[in-house]
Amino acid sequence: MKTHLLLKKIPQLTLVGAGPGDPELISLKGIKALQKADVVLYDALIHPALLDYASAESKRIYVGKRSGQHQFRQDEIHRIIAENAYNHGHVVRLKGGDPFVFGRGHEELEFAESIGIHTNLIPGISSSISVPELQRIPITRRGTNESFWVITGTTRSGLLSEDVKRAAQSSATVIILMGMNKLKEIREIFESNGKQNTPFAIIQNGSLPNEKIGLGYVNEIETIAKKEQLGAPAIIVIGEVVFDHPSFRSEVIRRHYFHHRISIN
Amino acid sequence: MKTHLLLKKIPQLTLVGAGPGDPELISLKGIKALQKADVVLYDALIHPALLDYASAESKRIYVGKRSGQHQFRQDEIHRIIAENAYNHGHVVRLKGGDPFVFGRGHEELEFAESIGIHTNLIPGISSSISVPELQRIPITRRGTNESFWVITGTTRSGLLSEDVKRAAQSSATVIILMGMNKLKEIREIFESNGKQNTPFAIIQNGSLPNEKIGLGYVNEIETIAKKEQLGAPAIIVIGEVVFDHPSFRSEVIRRHYFHHRISIN
Repeated sequence: MKTHLLLKKIPQLTLVGAGPGDPELISLKGIKALQKADVVLYDALIHPALLDYASAESKRIYVGKRSGQHQFRQDEIHRIIAENAYNHGHVVRLKGGDPFVFGRGHEELEFAESIGIHTNLIPGISSSISVPELQRIPITRRGTNESFWVITGTTRSGLLSEDVKRAAQSSATVIILMGMNKLKEIREIFESNGKQNTPFAIIQNGSLPNEKIGLGYVNEIETIAKKEQLGAPAIIVIGEVVFDHPSFRSEVIRRHYFHHRISIN
Repeated sequence: MKTHLLLKKIPQLTLVGAGPGDPELISLKGIKALQKADVVLYDALIHPALLDYASAESKRIYVGKRSGQHQFRQDEIHRIIAENAYNHGHVVRLKGGDPFVFGRGHEELEFAESIGIHTNLIPGISSSISVPELQRIPITRRGTNESFWVITGTTRSGLLSEDVKRAAQSSATVIILMGMNKLKEIREIFESNGKQNTPFAIIQNGSLPNEKIGLGYVNEIETIAKKEQLGAPAIIVIGEVVFDHPSFRSEVIRRHYFHHRISIN
């Protein structure tokens, strides 16, 4: 028993960004970390193929949303990290997108360090940039805009971030994460800044085979989201660059034509 | 000769984001694309190890800054893409960071498609997020901020983007790329918005062994950049989240103490 204790692995936590969904969009460094994992903690949005990189002996723990239930609380995740790092060694925490973009990843690292667990951090491809990009929407385009602004739709208070108001006044491409239940407020903010005719895109399941997109003008954002049956989690992009989506104009024309046909029947 | 023409490969362009610098931060999909490349076009910031994924028979063309000279013009790069796709088949265009973040990648895809070249796009880990992250600066942190704003310091006109002014008024973490020759203007904008005491970080060669960082308050940004000999390309991060850098306080104290010692000598 003493020998066993002496041979125990050093407790460590590696936070790994898994990218937007497509399992090939994880980094090589992320794959190498998984191969050395004793325990993998993973979220709801993690592709099952990624778990196959971990050895057959490794323990896999799901810490995402429980069927129809609330998510694991942050302190529960902290407890799971601590227990597993001390009992099994190397814990790899796989998070969708990039772990430092609205992911509370920093809190997990901070907690682990506070109790003496060695930590490593491997960035991921953030959905905020890559999901519009894979739809060929350039979030920056020379001559069109000089910045992009990424905002969470859901703040600690549960309200839409105040930053959306300021963003609506700027020339930035505005990218809103976790904002699907705030479409009305988003529309109203952009409308009150004279931006009812700015184009938007909503992209669900970005980078995956079941990817869906809705395109249109801000004043019709709720209508389109409903018609195209778009739901959370999804990425909302608002800005002139959305005009560069390969099918923006044809999509908007198709919808209006289709709508017209339904109306006259 | 006829047979040779018939066997010619389909001309195609794959734009690949190579990540912030560390060659292990490229995606698995990016590696697979390199393995199938007939020609690799690469920038100045591409790690040489990445070129080793391409087959020994592949052609490698450097299209970055020429020693002390100006960069390749965009139309020159377009011509190189066209010639190589038609003559050799699969051109992989490796770009640092993510190709759609101030990278003109979209223009290259658009050009290639306009002349009938099939295009693919593989996102990369953007330096704008990952470089601060690898320094353990959370660009978003629950309770501190609800957004981050990524801005180019150098616009088409050569001036600092007007968006920096609006960003200085917001609560967003502000991330400025290509802004190292605009530190004075950046300081003045933040100061005129009462943000002289907001912390900043400047990170050069992020994710690489020769990484360098300067930390301090906005009102001393030029002084610190000079003292720490920080130069372009570097990422500038301004916002309350910089206080979360593990050594922010100790670094600032060390510098002031050291400065004081020099002053009294």
